[in-house]
Amino acid sequence: MASSPYQNAESESENKFTFAIPNIKLQPLTHLKDYIPNLQTHPSPLDTNPFFRPLSEFYITPSDVILRHILHDFTGTFPTSGPNLAYHRAGPRKQIHFEPGHVRAAIVTCGGLCPGMNTVIKELVVGLWELYGVREIYGVRAGYRGFYSTEAVALNPKMVHEWHRKGGTVLETARGGFDLDKIVNAIQDRGFNQVYIIGGDGTMRGMVQIFNEIKRRKLNIAVAGIPKTVDNDVGIIDKSFGFQTAVEMAQQAINAAHTEAESAVNGIGLVKLMGRSTGHIALNATLSSRDVDCCLIPENDFYLEGKGGLFEFLDIRLKDNGHAVLVVAEGAGQDIIPRDDQSHVAEKDESGNPVFLDVGGWLKSELKKWWERDHPKELFTVKYIDPTYMIRAVPANATDNLYCTLLAHSAIHGAMAGYTGFVCGPINGNYAYIPVEEVAKAKNPVNTRDHKWAWFRSIANQPDFARS
Amino acid sequence: MASSPYQNAESESENKFTFAIPNIKLQPLTHLKDYIPNLQTHPSPLDTNPFFRPLSEFYITPSDVILRHILHDFTGTFPTSGPNLAYHRAGPRKQIHFEPGHVRAAIVTCGGLCPGMNTVIKELVVGLWELYGVREIYGVRAGYRGFYSTEAVALNPKMVHEWHRKGGTVLETARGGFDLDKIVNAIQDRGFNQVYIIGGDGTMRGMVQIFNEIKRRKLNIAVAGIPKTVDNDVGIIDKSFGFQTAVEMAQQAINAAHTEAESAVNGIGLVKLMGRSTGHIALNATLSSRDVDCCLIPENDFYLEGKGGLFEFLDIRLKDNGHAVLVVAEGAGQDIIPRDDQSHVAEKDESGNPVFLDVGGWLKSELKKWWERDHPKELFTVKYIDPTYMIRAVPANATDNLYCTLLAHSAIHGAMAGYTGFVCGPINGNYAYIPVEEVAKAKNPVNTRDHKWAWFRSIANQPDFARS
Amino acid sequence: MASSPYQNAESESENKFTFAIPNIKLQPLTHLKDYIPNLQTHPSPLDTNPFFRPLSEFYITPSDVILRHILHDFTGTFPTSGPNLAYHRAGPRKQIHFEPGHVRAAIVTCGGLCPGMNTVIKELVVGLWELYGVREIYGVRAGYRGFYSTEAVALNPKMVHEWHRKGGTVLETARGGFDLDKIVNAIQDRGFNQVYIIGGDGTMRGMVQIFNEIKRRKLNIAVAGIPKTVDNDVGIIDKSFGFQTAVEMAQQAINAAHTEAESAVNGIGLVKLMGRSTGHIALNATLSSRDVDCCLIPENDFYLEGKGGLFEFLDIRLKDNGHAVLVVAEGAGQDIIPRDDQSHVAEKDESGNPVFLDVGGWLKSELKKWWERDHPKELFTVKYIDPTYMIRAVPANATDNLYCTLLAHSAIHGAMAGYTGFVCGPINGNYAYIPVEEVAKAKNPVNTRDHKWAWFRSIANQPDFARS
Amino acid sequence: MASSPYQNAESESENKFTFAIPNIKLQPLTHLKDYIPNLQTHPSPLDTNPFFRPLSEFYITPSDVILRHILHDFTGTFPTSGPNLAYHRAGPRKQIHFEPGHVRAAIVTCGGLCPGMNTVIKELVVGLWELYGVREIYGVRAGYRGFYSTEAVALNPKMVHEWHRKGGTVLETARGGFDLDKIVNAIQDRGFNQVYIIGGDGTMRGMVQIFNEIKRRKLNIAVAGIPKTVDNDVGIIDKSFGFQTAVEMAQQAINAAHTEAESAVNGIGLVKLMGRSTGHIALNATLSSRDVDCCLIPENDFYLEGKGGLFEFLDIRLKDNGHAVLVVAEGAGQDIIPRDDQSHVAEKDESGNPVFLDVGGWLKSELKKWWERDHPKELFTVKYIDPTYMIRAVPANATDNLYCTLLAHSAIHGAMAGYTGFVCGPINGNYAYIPVEEVAKAKNPVNTRDHKWAWFRSIANQPDFARS
Repeated sequence: MASSPYQNAESESENKFTFAIPNIKLQPLTHLKDYIPNLQTHPSPLDTNPFFRPLSEFYITPSDVILRHILHDFTGTFPTSGPNLAYHRAGPRKQIHFEPGHVRAAIVTCGGLCPGMNTVIKELVVGLWELYGVREIYGVRAGYRGFYSTEAVALNPKMVHEWHRKGGTVLETARGGFDLDKIVNAIQDRGFNQVYIIGGDGTMRGMVQIFNEIKRRKLNIAVAGIPKTVDNDVGIIDKSFGFQTAVEMAQQAINAAHTEAESAVNGIGLVKLMGRSTGHIALNATLSSRDVDCCLIPENDFYLEGKGGLFEFLDIRLKDNGHAVLVVAEGAGQDIIPRDDQSHVAEKDESGNPVFLDVGGWLKSELKKWWERDHPKELFTVKYIDPTYMIRAVPANATDNLYCTLLAHSAIHGAMAGYTGFVCGPINGNYAYIPVEEVAKAKNPVNTRDHKWAWFRSIANQPDFARS
Repeated sequence: MASSPYQNAESESENKFTFAIPNIKLQPLTHLKDYIPNLQTHPSPLDTNPFFRPLSEFYITPSDVILRHILHDFTGTFPTSGPNLAYHRAGPRKQIHFEPGHVRAAIVTCGGLCPGMNTVIKELVVGLWELYGVREIYGVRAGYRGFYSTEAVALNPKMVHEWHRKGGTVLETARGGFDLDKIVNAIQDRGFNQVYIIGGDGTMRGMVQIFNEIKRRKLNIAVAGIPKTVDNDVGIIDKSFGFQTAVEMAQQAINAAHTEAESAVNGIGLVKLMGRSTGHIALNATLSSRDVDCCLIPENDFYLEGKGGLFEFLDIRLKDNGHAVLVVAEGAGQDIIPRDDQSHVAEKDESGNPVFLDVGGWLKSELKKWWERDHPKELFTVKYIDPTYMIRAVPANATDNLYCTLLAHSAIHGAMAGYTGFVCGPINGNYAYIPVEEVAKAKNPVNTRDHKWAWFRSIANQPDFARS
Repeated sequence: MASSPYQNAESESENKFTFAIPNIKLQPLTHLKDYIPNLQTHPSPLDTNPFFRPLSEFYITPSDVILRHILHDFTGTFPTSGPNLAYHRAGPRKQIHFEPGHVRAAIVTCGGLCPGMNTVIKELVVGLWELYGVREIYGVRAGYRGFYSTEAVALNPKMVHEWHRKGGTVLETARGGFDLDKIVNAIQDRGFNQVYIIGGDGTMRGMVQIFNEIKRRKLNIAVAGIPKTVDNDVGIIDKSFGFQTAVEMAQQAINAAHTEAESAVNGIGLVKLMGRSTGHIALNATLSSRDVDCCLIPENDFYLEGKGGLFEFLDIRLKDNGHAVLVVAEGAGQDIIPRDDQSHVAEKDESGNPVFLDVGGWLKSELKKWWERDHPKELFTVKYIDPTYMIRAVPANATDNLYCTLLAHSAIHGAMAGYTGFVCGPINGNYAYIPVEEVAKAKNPVNTRDHKWAWFRSIANQPDFARS
Repeated sequence: MASSPYQNAESESENKFTFAIPNIKLQPLTHLKDYIPNLQTHPSPLDTNPFFRPLSEFYITPSDVILRHILHDFTGTFPTSGPNLAYHRAGPRKQIHFEPGHVRAAIVTCGGLCPGMNTVIKELVVGLWELYGVREIYGVRAGYRGFYSTEAVALNPKMVHEWHRKGGTVLETARGGFDLDKIVNAIQDRGFNQVYIIGGDGTMRGMVQIFNEIKRRKLNIAVAGIPKTVDNDVGIIDKSFGFQTAVEMAQQAINAAHTEAESAVNGIGLVKLMGRSTGHIALNATLSSRDVDCCLIPENDFYLEGKGGLFEFLDIRLKDNGHAVLVVAEGAGQDIIPRDDQSHVAEKDESGNPVFLDVGGWLKSELKKWWERDHPKELFTVKYIDPTYMIRAVPANATDNLYCTLLAHSAIHGAMAGYTGFVCGPINGNYAYIPVEEVAKAKNPVNTRDHKWAWFRSIANQPDFARS
């Protein structure tokens, strides 16, 4: 397997093309050669895989990019504000940076559970092993602290064979434990030269620091991230893995709430769904189910009393239908729940996430108070369901399983090629490498100003809580 | 359709046979002719159904009975204590009491939801309509109070066609509202002469009163009950409908708890399952799942601290496996939860059921206190799942659907034949008519003294909390 | 662990009790001491399991029996014809025959797949290991031939931990390969002294031969069987494991057939379900689903043309509803399908089962011919679904999982106690040991003469095909 | 509700913008005013919906377009060959063409079943009724012929309330029956002025003719299409509804095949999946499942014998793993199955689709012949599963349900605005109106020349059947 030193000219030009159309900005992708001189390249072992004959279109070149914004108003600028961003396309490169026999890969999962984590881990192992012939692949146990506090577990395809059928993460996960020096020292001490990090926004912020520290120390270690957020609250990428499985599972809880509500006199079924900063799960589950009367999300303030308020709306629905179903995202209503009422304080999070008040429990008790006050002699029932763990602990469905596979392979190809500090994800349906700093900052709120939200309200026929 | 007056000789002999073997006692079944003289019989319309040719074995006679106890120790008496009970077998009778054109049937559902309620309702409607040609069938809305507070809804096969696919009860259900005079007056005023009551032990106690009052007034009204208890806490019958569906659904919650526990460091998954007086769901779900480390039920006291206690057991399990799954029936531990701690008082029940303390929430907080006290520096996670509504609001599975069909048809045949004050259910696999008084009193605790329970402990390998 | 020689008095009395009631016959259970003199007993290791305190009621004694027939007609004899049979109850014995450290157990699966096979295997392994401390447990691969043609696989609890979640059999199964001498020689050569055989009626007939040969050779080897038949065609026992899971899964196929039929003009959905000699799956699936118009089973002959025939019935149904759903058991109609039509000859079975004609494919083409002949200008659609492998290859549901666990533990307790040539199964809800010869011969046809079948017809409203 | 005549200037400019960037071509969208002069516009009733306050961004304008191609190689032209296409964005328009009180809408479903058809129908009914206040909505029964051969059924929201939970199509579907004159005459006679057509490529070709004939007759009738193809074989749009549900359901069949294969000696599980011209379902199901050894699709020729052939590959797999799973799309291998072998001729299709040979049955018999020839003494099993109807007859999953809702609302907004001859669908994630002529011709083959296919082969490790 002949290898040659990187040619500097190529390297420089990698992020410096001239676009054939105006106003496009390519997001730069860091390569290990950017800070380590005289690295060598190797031909990809995919060339010699017996079942595998790469066609000319097979390998991705640095000039393959993905456009983020699709033209919306073709009479104006393109896009309307600022330059359009382009991202390097994910996929196998003809020349790779790491010799497979020298790779020592580490995989770590951090934060809460999300359907598909085990599929990502499995496919990282299988992909590294089968595609590139890597034989040293380790699972880091229980989040960031696992780098320095426990021995990593050697993984191989046989071991992980059935993992895509399991919910959760076999590697275990944990919040907190981020200690930059200890982590980078451990990575160095244990000889890892590829680090795959699966986690949410807090984890991605940690990855930025790890990547920067590795760069500062000029280490030949590629760091690749795969964003994990069941809430779908990461921006830039189309959607996060596990999200669609969660929406599917949420149907069960909504069905149960609907049945309980329908089977009672003035029955209200109340479901709290995941979503601290965004209401994507609540919104999508509501639109898929069609049995929900009102969906409350963090992006849209609501109020209980008075004209246009929730109680007025529910009064009408109960009069009309005899029952109603409410879905509330866990991050909704945080500013109207009294902070001094200790019974609704949810627990503090070790990742340093803000303390959340239990909007479900609070709503349940407010609904009861309201009814006793306004309809003291009538029957009334609130059934409150919090299906969080039953949703997030399931295995990924088919769509998400495939998605996780493609994410894992994207990450592998990128790291093997020598790219680092990047995150994988689909942009407008195509897999891209995105600088981790950008992803760590990007939010993905439900846009309640555009026509999609109005569309939602028109479908759900629910109030918008805009006091006029 | 010729009809003839009941012959008194037959009537009397109905419950007065001499057994060919000793020590057997037949449980008496009340017939309307027992308190209304000179009633007429009619040939069953099943005889003339075009698709339907009753064979000689088809009709059930009063001498068809079911033995409750199966010989266990053949060297001793049979059975060991008291006489063996026999029950009248359910099924169609050759001569029926009600002329179908004169039947006005009412169906009511009371108490909490249970998988299969709608199947029972549907099959009562379809069976009365298709088998016997009854055309006046009404659904009483929202429990006992529906008799006197709302209009009953006319039902027909077309309307109920898909109901067996729906969870809950389309008729709505409610607790409380039992007012004997109002109910019996309403039954009389609205001309119902067959009343089908679907409900739990409280409902069955109400049915005893209704039946006795109807008998006191000498009304020509048959009252038939179908015990509904997802907890399986009714005695005599083999098991209650919906119970197996609930056990099946409980697997989901246990799986989620297991995944959450496995994916954490020192993770405990805690699932609260239904079962106020009995632990059948918890026990069966535990045995089916095999992922549960310890199952706590009302029939077996447990304690937390000290030798042989829960904490000691969990300490060992966490050391050995890194995680543990706990299942607790809602009625467990009621005597060791401090009553003065208001945070664990669950809400009062309108059926007059005792106030239950929230054993799940209490256990969760005790576990956390224990760990902080004994292992202050180690990671620890408790994920608590209460899947109650997601379990009880689902449609019945195939086994329960079939079971509900047979229960409904049993009830119909009994009522059409003129029997009253009875409840239907399988005894050792055969459907019987059981006096409602007996069922209203019969408990069905898990027997923790016999070898089945020891068997369970041997399978689960869990402590027995017997302080030695 | 002290041990003592069997006392002959005890041994003889084991099957020779005098019943307190008349006309009861105890089915004898063979014990190894019956043909091997001077065997020793050992106290059960369950006594010393740390978590496990056997109560007095825990151990089963030879006088614990289960009555097969429940009194039906209490005025006549008991039961009506012949003596009532009693069977030894399954469960742990206080004194056992095998010293756990000397046990070398073999497990084999034969015949077609059935939900729950892996659960039975798993629980045999876990039960032997955890309850009795057995450490040498082997899986025989691919049916009877595996005894002599391949090496058995050593099994332990860790290996089988997740097997109850998998369909099929990890040990592999095969038909045929029965060579008595080779098998018994191999059992002897490899030193197995407990052989657990999981299979259908053909397999049970093989087990009878193995058991007899072992007895002839006077070998100290216990042979225990667990009947496996998804068709539920084994008699004596209440039902076979996997059967209820199959009925549940069959709903999917019926739902699909119903949807296809409803969505077409004159649409017929035709589903072939398992059941060579019996129609239990077809019948139960039909009764659970309620979407089936006609269910054809081997026990009830049917015909197509003329008055009372299937075509006449379907004509009416299509006119009334626009669609119809047909369920046919694979063994139905074997005598009316033309044998010379090679297109409907299903393949020969290596277990020596009779060649079956493909009733589903034949019905489909007959239905088309009929419609083209009688309604040449009208639209018509037949959608034929054969879900066999999708039904039988699934993991067991909760009910069956628990059932399989209890079967496996019953078998272990019996073999450890020294019983042999028996099969485990529930009789009227209690687990019993039944002589394998008896089970190998016992059929379990659907009784189409009694009121349950008439009941079914009345529910399904289908013709009885009795030419009058 | 004031209305004004269309301004010609606006009309003309609708499809004639100048792009700010070069080389973009807008696909024209036909409006009823294009061939009917002096039509009036009306303000959208969405403005006055009480719960509904359109923001400025709410309404879509003619200048909102969606770009089809995303830049791939930014150094070359954009895109590489031909101009980039732009499509009008779907969504509500501020001015609408139809006065809701005058709308008479017809909905028709044609062709085979697909998950989500009932959701589309339901949402058309609910959307027209609730959003725009349309009250005359009709379902045309059983495909195109239903326009002239049966009475249409009046639909309302209450009727369709639960339809999204049902598989198939409540309106019934049929192939064939296309008679242009009869159809357009019937549309005219019955006074329909909005026609919603749900069907596959044959149906879309029919829609082109209907649209052209309506235009020729200058009728004020909007014709909107929603492409239905479970195979995902329609081009331009991202994917078709029901496809993801089908991929999900296909997992069941693959799991069963895998279990059957694993549980046998040299077991092959063979699954035929839908896909006449494309292998999308087979490919996606394979990638999601990861239990498939080889996936055969129409886009990639394969051969059985010799070097690089299927048999050689299976020989190795069976030697290595003892079993293998094959997935074959129904359109694969059509050119290598002998045409004269009548046993593999599948039935002719009334829509005029080509006769397909049964690749599954053929493969099964070829596999058996091969094994008997090459390994005459070894055990071998092929289990063949055709889950087609069990896949396509299920209700849509959550993802597809939401998708169907958005498709239906897109169609409604377009038709109400007066657009016609269009089809709705997402392009790069945004809903667009596409000329039906274009969709009727657009294919969507799996591209086996690009890196995605190589990626697939690398994941599945399967041969590419490229004879070298």
